[in-house]
Amino acid sequence: MKLNNLNDLFIHELKDLYNAENQIMKALPLMAKEASSTDLKNAFEMHLRETEKQIERLDMVFEKLGQKATGEKCKAMEGIIKEAQDIMSENADPDVMDAALIASAQRVEHYEIAGYGTVCTFAKQLGHTEVLNLLHQTLEEEKSTDMKLTSIAESKINIKAENKGGR
Amino acid sequence: MKLNNLNDLFIHELKDLYNAENQIMKALPLMAKEASSTDLKNAFEMHLRETEKQIERLDMVFEKLGQKATGEKCKAMEGIIKEAQDIMSENADPDVMDAALIASAQRVEHYEIAGYGTVCTFAKQLGHTEVLNLLHQTLEEEKSTDMKLTSIAESKINIKAENKGGR
Repeated sequence: MKLNNLNDLFIHELKDLYNAENQIMKALPLMAKEASSTDLKNAFEMHLRETEKQIERLDMVFEKLGQKATGEKCKAMEGIIKEAQDIMSENADPDVMDAALIASAQRVEHYEIAGYGTVCTFAKQLGHTEVLNLLHQTLEEEKSTDMKLTSIAESKINIKAENKGGR
Repeated sequence: MKLNNLNDLFIHELKDLYNAENQIMKALPLMAKEASSTDLKNAFEMHLRETEKQIERLDMVFEKLGQKATGEKCKAMEGIIKEAQDIMSENADPDVMDAALIASAQRVEHYEIAGYGTVCTFAKQLGHTEVLNLLHQTLEEEKSTDMKLTSIAESKINIKAENKGGR
């Protein structure tokens, strides 16, 4: 890979996100299965459907830019998901597991907020207006998912997880 | 590890962040060395000093909670830093490398924003007021670093990186 200019880096970052989204697609059903709270299960399932659309949007972005989506392995998302898998394999009270799943999912969301934030800035700088609109829709969805997870945690799950024995 | 209640998960998350911060301490000098822009070098060096203080704060948190900081390896931060190292080993124009370093650093910051956001919520729920104050200071610093990096990227580096040959 040779990064001669901002456009080269833009394509590299988009490929990283494309791979990250595909990793998330595989992880979300496992997280939804592990969740006990109906609200949390629904939130993961809704985000799975959103992720499918986000991948379609990236396909459109690559098409508009005349590029292929392949070639990058997102090692960061691999690490974030590995950490989520590790905690899912722990022996945990169901409500505490739900709180842990939210903590993991918010790390996933924040990786995407950082990544889409970067490519939005690059698209704007490079004058790719249509591409920017597509990427910005996804950025807003990721922020909204993050806020929804905070709301589920604070309003219900953390309270249930606190009131457990075993201290 | 047995996660019986929210307090167990709180300690687990704090250990994850402690290990993450220590990984960041080792990565930041390499990123500062790789940066060409003086503003970016200074930002990384300033964040290195902040990171030292953030680790001290976590030491205080563990002391207040009567816990030890050891025992977790943050695989997520390992992946994020591995990705940063990969891009640093690429053949890139210096301004484009600066833009790439910012993209990597913002992924680091967002991992911390997610992580400290989670432990702040837990500390509040568990009534650990003093600990919450310490963790909240760090959360605000991470958000501020993230915004500063966006500002450096948008005001200077991305513009320089765009105006390069090689397209």
